[in-house]
Amino acid sequence: MAGSPRRAAGRRLLLPLLCLFFQGATAILFAVFVRYNHETDAALWHWGNHSSAANEFYFRYPSFQDVHVMIFVGFGFLMAFLQRYGFSSVGFTFFLAAFALQWSTLIQGFLHAFHGGHIHVGVESMINADFCAGAVLISFGAVLGKTGPAQLLLMALLEVVLFGVNEFVLLGLLGVRVWAGLGVGWSVPGWGLLSSCVPPPQVRDAGGSMTIHTFGAYFGLVLSRVLYRPRLEKSKHRQGSVYHSDLFAMIGTIFLWIFWPSFNSAPTSLGDGQHRTALNTYYSLTSSTLSTFALSALVSRDGRLDMVHIQNAALAGGVVVGTSSEMMLTPFGALAAGFLAGMVSTLGPSLNQNSKSKTHVVSTTSMGCQGSWGPSWGSLWLGWPPMKLMEMGLLLKLPCLDYPSDSQCYEDQVYWEVPGEHEDTAQEPLRVEEPDTQA
Amino acid sequence: MAGSPRRAAGRRLLLPLLCLFFQGATAILFAVFVRYNHETDAALWHWGNHSSAANEFYFRYPSFQDVHVMIFVGFGFLMAFLQRYGFSSVGFTFFLAAFALQWSTLIQGFLHAFHGGHIHVGVESMINADFCAGAVLISFGAVLGKTGPAQLLLMALLEVVLFGVNEFVLLGLLGVRVWAGLGVGWSVPGWGLLSSCVPPPQVRDAGGSMTIHTFGAYFGLVLSRVLYRPRLEKSKHRQGSVYHSDLFAMIGTIFLWIFWPSFNSAPTSLGDGQHRTALNTYYSLTSSTLSTFALSALVSRDGRLDMVHIQNAALAGGVVVGTSSEMMLTPFGALAAGFLAGMVSTLGPSLNQNSKSKTHVVSTTSMGCQGSWGPSWGSLWLGWPPMKLMEMGLLLKLPCLDYPSDSQCYEDQVYWEVPGEHEDTAQEPLRVEEPDTQA
Amino acid sequence: MAGSPRRAAGRRLLLPLLCLFFQGATAILFAVFVRYNHETDAALWHWGNHSSAANEFYFRYPSFQDVHVMIFVGFGFLMAFLQRYGFSSVGFTFFLAAFALQWSTLIQGFLHAFHGGHIHVGVESMINADFCAGAVLISFGAVLGKTGPAQLLLMALLEVVLFGVNEFVLLGLLGVRVWAGLGVGWSVPGWGLLSSCVPPPQVRDAGGSMTIHTFGAYFGLVLSRVLYRPRLEKSKHRQGSVYHSDLFAMIGTIFLWIFWPSFNSAPTSLGDGQHRTALNTYYSLTSSTLSTFALSALVSRDGRLDMVHIQNAALAGGVVVGTSSEMMLTPFGALAAGFLAGMVSTLGPSLNQNSKSKTHVVSTTSMGCQGSWGPSWGSLWLGWPPMKLMEMGLLLKLPCLDYPSDSQCYEDQVYWEVPGEHEDTAQEPLRVEEPDTQA
Repeated sequence: MAGSPRRAAGRRLLLPLLCLFFQGATAILFAVFVRYNHETDAALWHWGNHSSAANEFYFRYPSFQDVHVMIFVGFGFLMAFLQRYGFSSVGFTFFLAAFALQWSTLIQGFLHAFHGGHIHVGVESMINADFCAGAVLISFGAVLGKTGPAQLLLMALLEVVLFGVNEFVLLGLLGVRVWAGLGVGWSVPGWGLLSSCVPPPQVRDAGGSMTIHTFGAYFGLVLSRVLYRPRLEKSKHRQGSVYHSDLFAMIGTIFLWIFWPSFNSAPTSLGDGQHRTALNTYYSLTSSTLSTFALSALVSRDGRLDMVHIQNAALAGGVVVGTSSEMMLTPFGALAAGFLAGMVSTLGPSLNQNSKSKTHVVSTTSMGCQGSWGPSWGSLWLGWPPMKLMEMGLLLKLPCLDYPSDSQCYEDQVYWEVPGEHEDTAQEPLRVEEPDTQA
Repeated sequence: MAGSPRRAAGRRLLLPLLCLFFQGATAILFAVFVRYNHETDAALWHWGNHSSAANEFYFRYPSFQDVHVMIFVGFGFLMAFLQRYGFSSVGFTFFLAAFALQWSTLIQGFLHAFHGGHIHVGVESMINADFCAGAVLISFGAVLGKTGPAQLLLMALLEVVLFGVNEFVLLGLLGVRVWAGLGVGWSVPGWGLLSSCVPPPQVRDAGGSMTIHTFGAYFGLVLSRVLYRPRLEKSKHRQGSVYHSDLFAMIGTIFLWIFWPSFNSAPTSLGDGQHRTALNTYYSLTSSTLSTFALSALVSRDGRLDMVHIQNAALAGGVVVGTSSEMMLTPFGALAAGFLAGMVSTLGPSLNQNSKSKTHVVSTTSMGCQGSWGPSWGSLWLGWPPMKLMEMGLLLKLPCLDYPSDSQCYEDQVYWEVPGEHEDTAQEPLRVEEPDTQA
Repeated sequence: MAGSPRRAAGRRLLLPLLCLFFQGATAILFAVFVRYNHETDAALWHWGNHSSAANEFYFRYPSFQDVHVMIFVGFGFLMAFLQRYGFSSVGFTFFLAAFALQWSTLIQGFLHAFHGGHIHVGVESMINADFCAGAVLISFGAVLGKTGPAQLLLMALLEVVLFGVNEFVLLGLLGVRVWAGLGVGWSVPGWGLLSSCVPPPQVRDAGGSMTIHTFGAYFGLVLSRVLYRPRLEKSKHRQGSVYHSDLFAMIGTIFLWIFWPSFNSAPTSLGDGQHRTALNTYYSLTSSTLSTFALSALVSRDGRLDMVHIQNAALAGGVVVGTSSEMMLTPFGALAAGFLAGMVSTLGPSLNQNSKSKTHVVSTTSMGCQGSWGPSWGSLWLGWPPMKLMEMGLLLKLPCLDYPSDSQCYEDQVYWEVPGEHEDTAQEPLRVEEPDTQA
């Protein structure tokens, strides 16, 4: 009780100070290192005597905007399924992704595109940064409802770095060309030559599913283990959805589903590769939807469909062909892959009866990944054994980070001004208490 | 009572079996017949020595994505206006469209683009398949709330075939060049030559409104007649909207309205034709909105606006210029057409006092069509007299298809796990009964 | 009491008559003056022997559609935060913007692109018209809840004219090249030559923020002063939000935020300029989001975040770089500008304790503007002193315009058929009374 006023003051300062510090540091790094690239710098572009119409903007920007919608609307509203956590789901998505976009521009730049002492930015780096933000949001989904904004900001800070380093390890040490999603022309400054008839210098993997989804899911699962709370029954009554919160979640689901072909095809090489990637993903998504509906009716007690399954279907079909969709997978291959992914992502979580709300988002992704790549993907993370990640994760349990107590989980009111007239649940006065889950 | 356990078991198996069977059959047909086209096949594209930037993807894909948003977000949420049918509206839209996309790729391919024993796919076939899914969803709107998922899947199966055959009849037998919407380059493999200065080989009609909207509406109306239930007053209390369900419906409405210029222009020939189609549709939509607001205030008892009218306005202005918007209609012509369409679609249903919820979506479309093409469109369906369609429709009344009883209509809980805490309506325990509307 | 039946009849006729008159007049003006431009006219385009792929449609239309989403979904749902004003927010946005698109095509055409007795239209005029609609909606935000549709229609009529004249004044009399947003090639008919390697004839300013946002905000603030109501405590209980109305508002917020790079870059010259504008805006938005979250936690009583601040963040970062984002601002410059804008737009309104719901939208914009351009922007409006505008505004207070009484403010039921079963608030019978706020 004695700590409460001190704590309220601390909370009032904690998030602002972290934000201002991180934003200040990022801005300074931008000032020193980040420069326009050949496509966005007035002098460089005009010096090259290009046609305006050949600027990469016209080939990448529509795809970028589709991905941008997925990150902010898709993930944000997908996680708004909880009855009293809509403000946090949409708001923290907004907050985390905005930070991750800046921070990953720096990290990815340093690791993959540091030339002449500078990071050069344009629509490619925008797409890459959005991809990294996607991984952060998948991890957010794994700890949904059990974390505060300061904790999440720190999580994003760490995860963006690990995400970049992981790509670097995969690319450099293992010699694998699977860094996908981050392969967009980092090493090819001359995209302005697009309009020439020369085929792209090399074919790259698409979608970055392996990097983004497995890393995001893996990081999230480890984090979820670190932040495990044995006494969450205290906030069990808020772990479900209400009618309209599920409809808000469907906004996110459907936008993710619609734009997944753009997500997988955004970073591919231009021409037939991008076209084929979009087409394959489109087919995979349609069949994963059908198998999800089939399995959802089958596994339920009385043949009724379950919104949680349907919301997962949005991810499985797109994730499963993430890496392979640029290849000559054939339309049939895409259908088959999507079908299996939908099955696995629906069957998987339902075998574990009480996993529903705990690992809502993540479950799909990791199941989808395991379903498609089998045991192989696990080996990709050799450099990042769970124990090391868990040590790092302990940092997130510092009591000063102001995370919710067990009885405050899944509740907007802890971090948001919530309007008084709630139509959803009875108004319960919320005690602000000391965090009861000590590290 | 004795039938209940048996029926529950049947329900649990019916939808999964149908899904798995249809998906399996579709996948096999894909394996045998569907191939990448010149723009999506790595070998064919590179053999052609094209510039990557000339790939049709960059000219069609942004329009495709707009259409994709209309189909899944637009139609899905437009139909979420019912107070207790949001899960079904959005979820079944998702389900039906995902199936229709695959199935119509096959049917349209067989009928319109079967060359050398194969169907060749790319962004054009994606647009065409989305258009056919639109027709299926218009029919779904006509039977909204009175059908189960298995029944709807069968409906989609039949309708996609009839939609394809109808185009074939219009094109082949009647010699009319109005198949629009499906005219996207089926017979023009060399879209890679886009960047050359040769004008497109022929000007085609745009938007496919006649095919899509009239067929969808017509099919839906016949179906609605076949599935007519005289005792629907049992679920009358659920036929209206609630405040937030109408707002969800506005999400669908507004997205349909915004992207209609893309819908009409997606399948046109490239260049001035596509540009003009989008422009004409844009003007038509603005004036149909104004006339809808004007008429809505005029026809109501006390000058108040009606959400049902406004939701219809999204369709009328775009539908009415669907076929003509590629022509040199003039901006004034577009305004005038839209204005009339908005008037007719608002006045029409209001003359029939109790038609509101029954034919919500469809009414607009058919009114819009009749308003613009007058008696002529009826004659297009000579080959498909209502009686024949109705015979076919009887198939959908097989009791094994597990459709809702009269008292279960307009209710998500029949087919969906619905969260327990409803903020909308009092919780009523729902008896699962035998269908009481026998064929 | 005696006036009620007369008034009901008046209301029933007022809006329809205004709509039909304005739409009729607009249509006639379209018939006389509006023609397809070089890019949309079949004869002109083919006469020029252009490649179809060089049509400006492919370079501008994706950006146009992003802007279109912002206007209708973004602004519409952003204003749906009030608990009982969602129908009006989304519906009147739809109505006003649909009218403004037509009317501003005429006004902007007469003032800026009247050649040979005709206004020539294409994707550029569509973008320009959407921009003007944006200004109208910002003003709508300033008088949200206190106006009726007839009054708003008249407001749009006046504002579109003043918006056009203001640009004309800035451009012609003051010789400033800041009319941005309206600079899209009005004087450059030969956009078809895009694919040539010649750099664009001149570099223009981007985004039109100065014109759109300051004009919209300024006009709205003056209007808000004219329509000031001293006794609004009568409807105070409806001035707040409820849980789900804030989530609907987040749909608008997030879509505005996502597409702001397209908004600022839509009217710029093609090539590196458009690319750089989108990139700068993207950075500015991310940092304004971080500073908004930081300041929101800081200024609140107990460190909790406030939805009103977050909803404002969507605007500040994009507005602040509206004019400068085409310049070589550097990525750091964009971050810094966005950071300051987020701070100012969060701190500003919070200093004025009771300004929250009154000037929700507008406050941000004007603060953002003042924050970035300081005292300079005020001088741009020399030609339009507040007093003149206020005289004009008196026209909007004519009692025949059927605006809501003080106790009817912020209530959908005055102008909309609202479904009977409200989950949000207790059902209160609404007396229709004579307007009690006489001019």
